[in-house]
Amino acid sequence: MADGRTTPLCVFLSLLLLLSAVNGLMQDFCVGDLSFSDTPAGYPCKEVSQVTCDDFVFTGLAMPGDTSNLIKAAVTPAFVSQFPGVNGLGISAARLDIAPGGVIPLHTHPGGSELLVVIEGTICAGFISSANNVYVTTLNKGDTMVFPPGQLHFQINAGDFPALAFVSFNSPNPGLQITAYALFANSLPSPLVEKVTFLDDEQVKKLKKVLGGSG
Amino acid sequence: MADGRTTPLCVFLSLLLLLSAVNGLMQDFCVGDLSFSDTPAGYPCKEVSQVTCDDFVFTGLAMPGDTSNLIKAAVTPAFVSQFPGVNGLGISAARLDIAPGGVIPLHTHPGGSELLVVIEGTICAGFISSANNVYVTTLNKGDTMVFPPGQLHFQINAGDFPALAFVSFNSPNPGLQITAYALFANSLPSPLVEKVTFLDDEQVKKLKKVLGGSG
Amino acid sequence: MADGRTTPLCVFLSLLLLLSAVNGLMQDFCVGDLSFSDTPAGYPCKEVSQVTCDDFVFTGLAMPGDTSNLIKAAVTPAFVSQFPGVNGLGISAARLDIAPGGVIPLHTHPGGSELLVVIEGTICAGFISSANNVYVTTLNKGDTMVFPPGQLHFQINAGDFPALAFVSFNSPNPGLQITAYALFANSLPSPLVEKVTFLDDEQVKKLKKVLGGSG
Amino acid sequence: MADGRTTPLCVFLSLLLLLSAVNGLMQDFCVGDLSFSDTPAGYPCKEVSQVTCDDFVFTGLAMPGDTSNLIKAAVTPAFVSQFPGVNGLGISAARLDIAPGGVIPLHTHPGGSELLVVIEGTICAGFISSANNVYVTTLNKGDTMVFPPGQLHFQINAGDFPALAFVSFNSPNPGLQITAYALFANSLPSPLVEKVTFLDDEQVKKLKKVLGGSG
Amino acid sequence: MADGRTTPLCVFLSLLLLLSAVNGLMQDFCVGDLSFSDTPAGYPCKEVSQVTCDDFVFTGLAMPGDTSNLIKAAVTPAFVSQFPGVNGLGISAARLDIAPGGVIPLHTHPGGSELLVVIEGTICAGFISSANNVYVTTLNKGDTMVFPPGQLHFQINAGDFPALAFVSFNSPNPGLQITAYALFANSLPSPLVEKVTFLDDEQVKKLKKVLGGSG
Amino acid sequence: MADGRTTPLCVFLSLLLLLSAVNGLMQDFCVGDLSFSDTPAGYPCKEVSQVTCDDFVFTGLAMPGDTSNLIKAAVTPAFVSQFPGVNGLGISAARLDIAPGGVIPLHTHPGGSELLVVIEGTICAGFISSANNVYVTTLNKGDTMVFPPGQLHFQINAGDFPALAFVSFNSPNPGLQITAYALFANSLPSPLVEKVTFLDDEQVKKLKKVLGGSG
Repeated sequence: MADGRTTPLCVFLSLLLLLSAVNGLMQDFCVGDLSFSDTPAGYPCKEVSQVTCDDFVFTGLAMPGDTSNLIKAAVTPAFVSQFPGVNGLGISAARLDIAPGGVIPLHTHPGGSELLVVIEGTICAGFISSANNVYVTTLNKGDTMVFPPGQLHFQINAGDFPALAFVSFNSPNPGLQITAYALFANSLPSPLVEKVTFLDDEQVKKLKKVLGGSG
Repeated sequence: MADGRTTPLCVFLSLLLLLSAVNGLMQDFCVGDLSFSDTPAGYPCKEVSQVTCDDFVFTGLAMPGDTSNLIKAAVTPAFVSQFPGVNGLGISAARLDIAPGGVIPLHTHPGGSELLVVIEGTICAGFISSANNVYVTTLNKGDTMVFPPGQLHFQINAGDFPALAFVSFNSPNPGLQITAYALFANSLPSPLVEKVTFLDDEQVKKLKKVLGGSG
Repeated sequence: MADGRTTPLCVFLSLLLLLSAVNGLMQDFCVGDLSFSDTPAGYPCKEVSQVTCDDFVFTGLAMPGDTSNLIKAAVTPAFVSQFPGVNGLGISAARLDIAPGGVIPLHTHPGGSELLVVIEGTICAGFISSANNVYVTTLNKGDTMVFPPGQLHFQINAGDFPALAFVSFNSPNPGLQITAYALFANSLPSPLVEKVTFLDDEQVKKLKKVLGGSG
Repeated sequence: MADGRTTPLCVFLSLLLLLSAVNGLMQDFCVGDLSFSDTPAGYPCKEVSQVTCDDFVFTGLAMPGDTSNLIKAAVTPAFVSQFPGVNGLGISAARLDIAPGGVIPLHTHPGGSELLVVIEGTICAGFISSANNVYVTTLNKGDTMVFPPGQLHFQINAGDFPALAFVSFNSPNPGLQITAYALFANSLPSPLVEKVTFLDDEQVKKLKKVLGGSG
Repeated sequence: MADGRTTPLCVFLSLLLLLSAVNGLMQDFCVGDLSFSDTPAGYPCKEVSQVTCDDFVFTGLAMPGDTSNLIKAAVTPAFVSQFPGVNGLGISAARLDIAPGGVIPLHTHPGGSELLVVIEGTICAGFISSANNVYVTTLNKGDTMVFPPGQLHFQINAGDFPALAFVSFNSPNPGLQITAYALFANSLPSPLVEKVTFLDDEQVKKLKKVLGGSG
Repeated sequence: MADGRTTPLCVFLSLLLLLSAVNGLMQDFCVGDLSFSDTPAGYPCKEVSQVTCDDFVFTGLAMPGDTSNLIKAAVTPAFVSQFPGVNGLGISAARLDIAPGGVIPLHTHPGGSELLVVIEGTICAGFISSANNVYVTTLNKGDTMVFPPGQLHFQINAGDFPALAFVSFNSPNPGLQITAYALFANSLPSPLVEKVTFLDDEQVKKLKKVLGGSG
C-alpha cells in the first residue's frame, strides 16, 4: 500500500464503509434451525449473529457405536438432524462400527453418493448396479470406495477384529433405506410382500416376526 | 409497426441481420448422439442441422408390451437410449402393461422421481419410505400417483382386466433396479446375499435358480 | 442370518436401536404445506407424521375438462398448487382435453420441459426453436413428443373425435404463458403491444376486446 | 513462517511437492472448444495449457451495434458461441443499442434470468408473467431491472437520444426467441398460426410478407 | 380465430375458465421477503398480490460510490439484501467505481461467477487459478471479462481518469471475501495468521493496526 | 411367487425379456475416461463393459504423505484426476498428514464444501466468512468440522504427535487455492501484489523468493 502509509486510520474507516453495505448480507452458510419446517432445499437458517464455531463442529462421531446387537454393527449419522451445520452445504457423514462377524445390511441412500474410507480393520463392500452387475471387493485400512447414488450396497467385516469406517455423502440428508427393514419391519401385508419380491410366504412371515413387522 | 409500413423488405433484411449473430448458436435442445461416449450430463448433441421433428417423437409406447410371461407385466421404456430426443431435457417416460394377476416387482429408480397416470384398469401401488413407512393405495382410471426418487415401490394389477399406465420421470435416464433381480439374478454368492438380507439359504438358492442367478 | 436364529427378539430391538437415530430425520419427500409462504425451492414441508398416502395421489385428472368453450379445449393441471405431493420432487402433470376443432393456443412453460402422450384421438403438435425452426407433426394414440423448456408450442385436435393427452413436466410448477393471453388479455396499452409485436392497431384492439383486455 | 527462515529453498521445493499432485487436475474453468460437439452441460474444455488470458476477455461489446434498420435497434450477444470463455460458468452478456424510436421486440430467453443496466438514455421495459400480470416501467441511466427466466419481455427507447444497456444472463447460452419472428418469419402455415394465436388471416399474411415468412 | 368472431364475450369467459385454475399458482418469480429467515435456496417469497413492478427495479446503482477513501474505490452491490427482486433468480449485480490510483483489492466471490463490463476508463484486471496460473489484462471501455467462481481476482484503475464498471454474478448472493480484510481486520491471532500465510510478524501486526484488526 | 412355482425357467426367460430393453442403457455411474477432454459436468464415461470394481476403489490414501518438508504437512488428493470413479458422482476425498508443528496453509476450495474427520492427533482448524467473522476451534480424534464452499480456511497440528485427518468434498474436483502460493509463487509482478494486498514491498519480495515466484 505504497501511497497509504501515512493515513492508516483513514483506511480503517473507509474500508469499513466500503464493506458496511456488504457485511451482514452474505449467506456463506445456513446453519439449520430445526425448529422451523423443513423445505425442499433444507431448513431455514439460524440467525448469523447467533451462529458460533460450535455449529460447524460435530463430536458425535468420536465414540464407537454400540455393536452388541445381532448385526454386530452400528451406524452413527452426522446428517442435518444431528449436525445442523451441514444444512445447505451439500455434504454429511456417518461412522460405521462393525464388529467381527458384523454386517451393515443391504441398503440404499436415495439422496446421494457415498464415499467410504476404512480406518481400522478389513471390510468386504459392494454394490449392485441397475444393469444388475455386482461390484464387490475387500477393503483394507486406508482404502476408499465410492457408491453411486441410490444403488443397493452393503459392508461386512471381513476380518477378525473390529472394523471402523467413516463415510461421507454429497447431501446433508442422504436417507437410508435398509431393504430387509423395508420389507419385513412394517405392516406391509405378507401376500403383498410376496407378490412383489417372489419370496415364499414362510420366509416372509419368519422375517416379519424377527424384525418386528406385522401383517 | 406504425412507422414501418413503407419499407417491409428492409425490415426483413435488418431483422435477419439482427438475428444472424444469434441463430445457430442456441442450445434449445440437445438431441443425443448415442455414437459418442456418454457424459455425466448426458450424451453429446446431434448437429442441429440434422435434427428433425422425428427426433422429438417416440412411437414405441403406442403398442402394448407383451405380458405373456410369469409376472404378467411389461415395462416399455422411453429413456434416452430409446428416445434420444429427451437427452439433456430432464424428462423421460415409460409404459406399464399389467395383465390381471400381474405385477411390476418391487424396484427403485435411483435417478429420479416418478409420476404415474392410470389409463386403463385398477392398480394397487405403493412405496416404502426411508423411515420405513408404507404408503399403499388403489388407483383407478385417471388417478395419478407420485413416487419420491430412490424409494422402493411397486405396482400390481388390482382388477380383473388388463391395466395400462404411463409413467414419467424427471430424468432422461432414471435407472431401474428391481430388488429381486439385484439379489437373485446374478453371481452374488448366496452366503453373502443371506448375510446382507437375513434371508434363509434355502430361499436364496431357490430364487437364484428361478431367476437365473449363480453362486 | 446363520448365526442369529436363536435370538429373533434381540434382532428386533437392536435393529430398532440401530435405526432409531436415523428414523424421523429423513427427507424422502416434502409434501407442500401451502399455508406457508413459497420459497425458491418450493413450499415448506408438511409434518411427516401428518402425511398420508392420499398426499401422493391426485384424482383431479380422472374427469375430462369442459371443452364447451370457444377454443374447444381444456387444460387440467396437477401442479404443486393442486397436488402438493409433488412439492420438491421435480415433477408434475396435466390433462389436455381437445374437442374436434379445438386448440391449446401457442404457449410456453417458462419453468420446465414437457412430455406428452396421446391417449385418444389425433393431435397436431409443434414447437418453434430459438433459431426460428419449426418442428410440427401429427401424433396418434400412444405417440409421445417432448417439448424443450421455454419454447413456444401448441396442440391442435387433428381429427374428428375428441383428443385426450397427458403431459408431464420436470418441475412441480412449470408455469404456463399463453401468448395471445399475454398480449391481449390484460391492460398492456395497445400502442405498446403494437410496438413490440409489429401487429396492426386494428388487430390488437379487436383481440383485446375479444379476450377481455383493456388499454 | 517463524521456523522456516533458514531454509527458503527447501520451502520452495517442498511446497512444489505438496502441490505437484494437485496442479494440473483442477477444473477452475472450462473454456469451450467449439470444434467439439456441444453437450447438455456445455462444450468440452479447451486444453488448460492452451488457455490464455484472452480466452476470458471479449471485446465485441465495445462497439455500438448498427441500428440503421427498421426496429432501430441491435442486440450484440456475448454468449458461449461468441465468447467461449463463459462455457460452463453459468453467465453471459449482451449489448443493447436502441436508437430513438427503436425497440427490442417482445421476446423470451428460454434458458435464463436477465439483468439489465441502463448505461445511456431512457428505456421503457416490461415483462408479462404467467399469471398474465404486466410489470412495465421507465428506466433511466444507472437503473437496473431483472426479468425472470422464460417470461415475455421487451425494451423500447423512451427518449429522444440513443439508449445503451448491458444485459447479463445466468446461463452461457440463454437463448432468444422473438415472438414476431417465431410467428411470421418461417414456414409455419398461416392457418396454423391463426389457429394458435387468434390473429386474422390478413394480419398473419401481411407480417409473414414483411418478416420473410412463407406458407 | 375464423370460427369465433360471433361470440367474443364467450371467448373471454371460456378462456378465463381455462386459465382460472392456473392463475395464482405460478411461481414465475419469488421476490424475497427479508422479514423471514433465509433458506439455502433464498428467502421465502413475498405474496404475489403485493408484488409491483418496483420490486424488479433497483436504482441504487445509478449514483457513483464514494471513492474519497484510501483505496480510492467503491463497490455498490445489488445483491438480494439490497435488491430482493433477484431472490431465487440466480443473478445479481454490482457497480464498481475506481478513481485514478484506486484498487478493488484481491478478493473472491465464494458463491458465483462474475462478468465485468467496463463503462468508463481503463482497468487492469486479473485472476489466479487453482493451478497458480495468472490471467491479467488491461480492459478498455466496452471490454468484458469473466472471472470463474471462487477464484482470487482484482481490479485496478490503469488510467488517469475515473473508471466505472458494472459486474454481474450468477447468484443473488455471491458473497465477497477480501483477502486482506479476512487476514487483518478481525481478531484472528497474529501468530496464527503468520503460521497459515508465511507472513512476518511485523507485517501482520502493521496491517492489523491499519485495517482495524486485533490479536 | 405363489402362482409361479411350476415354471421357474419361464420366469428366468420372461424376466430377462422384461429387462433386456433396459439393461445396458443405465447410467448408474460414469467412471471418467481421462483420455477425453473434460466437460463442465466432468469427463466422458468409460464404457460400462470395461468398468470393474477396481474403478470404484482408491488405495492411494492408505499411505501417509511425506511431511518431511517445511510446512511439515502433506495433502494427498483422491479427486477425479487420481480417482476417476468419482467422476459425475459429486464427491471426492483427500488425506491430510500434519506432523507436529505442521500446517495446511490458508486456502480455499473454489468448487465445494469440505467435511473433515480427525483420525489421529489434535488439529486447530478454522475458517473466515465473507462477513469477516472467524470460526476457529480445536478438534480431537473423531471430531468432525464442516467448511462452507469457497471460504478461506486452514488446519494446524495443535499437538505433539502427528495428526491425520480425512476430508471429503461434495465435488469430484473441488479445486485448491493456497493463498500464499497464489500471491508469491508465480510471476504476478510485485507492485501489483502489493497494490491488491496492502503488503509491503519487502515482504512480497521476500516471500516470492522463498516460494519460487518471480517479478
